[in-house]
Amino acid sequence: MDPRPIGVFDSGFGGLTAVRQLRRIMPSETIIYFGDTARVPYGNRSRDTLLRYARQDVAFLRSFDPKAIVIACGTVSSNCLEELQAENKVPILGVVEPTVRRAIAATRSGRVGLAATRASVSSGAYERLFHRLAPAVEVVSRACPLFVPLVEEGRCRPGDVVIETVAEEYLGPLRGEIDTLVLGCTHYPLLREVIGRVMGPEVELVDAGAEAARAVRDLLEERDALSGGEDQGQARYYTSDQTEQFLRLAPLFLGEDVTGRAEQIDITRY
Amino acid sequence: MDPRPIGVFDSGFGGLTAVRQLRRIMPSETIIYFGDTARVPYGNRSRDTLLRYARQDVAFLRSFDPKAIVIACGTVSSNCLEELQAENKVPILGVVEPTVRRAIAATRSGRVGLAATRASVSSGAYERLFHRLAPAVEVVSRACPLFVPLVEEGRCRPGDVVIETVAEEYLGPLRGEIDTLVLGCTHYPLLREVIGRVMGPEVELVDAGAEAARAVRDLLEERDALSGGEDQGQARYYTSDQTEQFLRLAPLFLGEDVTGRAEQIDITRY
Repeated sequence: MDPRPIGVFDSGFGGLTAVRQLRRIMPSETIIYFGDTARVPYGNRSRDTLLRYARQDVAFLRSFDPKAIVIACGTVSSNCLEELQAENKVPILGVVEPTVRRAIAATRSGRVGLAATRASVSSGAYERLFHRLAPAVEVVSRACPLFVPLVEEGRCRPGDVVIETVAEEYLGPLRGEIDTLVLGCTHYPLLREVIGRVMGPEVELVDAGAEAARAVRDLLEERDALSGGEDQGQARYYTSDQTEQFLRLAPLFLGEDVTGRAEQIDITRY
Repeated sequence: MDPRPIGVFDSGFGGLTAVRQLRRIMPSETIIYFGDTARVPYGNRSRDTLLRYARQDVAFLRSFDPKAIVIACGTVSSNCLEELQAENKVPILGVVEPTVRRAIAATRSGRVGLAATRASVSSGAYERLFHRLAPAVEVVSRACPLFVPLVEEGRCRPGDVVIETVAEEYLGPLRGEIDTLVLGCTHYPLLREVIGRVMGPEVELVDAGAEAARAVRDLLEERDALSGGEDQGQARYYTSDQTEQFLRLAPLFLGEDVTGRAEQIDITRY
């Protein structure tokens, strides 16, 4: 048993959907979340810049002596995971590999869809990993650039003509073509219902946040490092920009309030 | 007569609508544009960070020995204009004051609308300036947070149910309440037709980019500092992030292609 916290970071708010899943399946764990809201989005950064940012994010979380760190950012998971793992003793998990493994296990037709940001799609990182782990699986990618701003404006519910029109445009063409759809951005689980209606009930939606949470639980179980407590674990939230927007959006992603538990820090000092 | 260039900067792409107007009304001028695409958006930054960024943006443009600099960013115009003017000999113009003056001249009812980003609306900068210059004018502000991402996805044309629904939600409530609407973000001129249909033909739309361009022309005329040339002036574009997205979006804002004229620079060295 290990009472130390689990650290989670993302470029912004999206990683909170992973925190939500962590708190759902391991309610007694303590969570430290860092959202790099001053430097979001990471998607367009050069590899050098990205690695510098990710090292600072890890260094900040390490100041809490965590027993594991989750990279809830697809871009960092795809581009910097190996370096970060090599440089740190604490186990570090990315969000991409558990998601890809789950989709490979789920598909029967061998045709998988990927919905992600424009940066994730053009990086080709998901496709490369699918190709390495299951060369026979065919991946059809769709960039969904308006999903993040629409979710951040709370437009994620069925019946909203704006999100429904955009979701149909982006994903309607995949209907009947695939049997599994990867929600390859941590914002997208909030669109599960809207996307589910577009794709139909036969298509399984694979949620990156939920898969990352499961991967952490498996790792901690294997190492006998679960907290073992019975009380509800605490969660603390840190951002690199003012907390105002964070306090407004976090409840949407987490399904719980964060008032009094969010604080701004200067990430450039780490 | 003065053949030196006019410098323009913004946090991203929006300032290109000011460049378009500059090129329209002063076609023989040379324009240097800097878009700080690696650090966009400026709206949520602390005042210290904002001033540091703006000083670097000005320093970069000064390396071209410009005869005037236009701050095509509402946030910098509202928060840093006086410091930048005090620190530099080259004349520096903001985008906010010319726009407010035009709206004051245009309104008959004394009721003016302001459509802007959430950051601009909550800063209260436009309202304060209206209050100082024309205390009797009443300003009704509407934050329009989805306009920027929708424009950047090219969704700015009448007939698109997504932009029409969002525009009606944001601005429909102002119909019949105002006679003048300030488009208080340099992205919004691309929505002129959509917004015009929502507001109706009686409402005058005041475009920040066009007003800033007019203010520069007036200043240069007054100082006898127009280029005086007869050839089409050149325009060069610089960004702090990779130019790929810039090359994709710039033609939408400018109405002309920029291939071969855009270059990435390291703004942190200025």
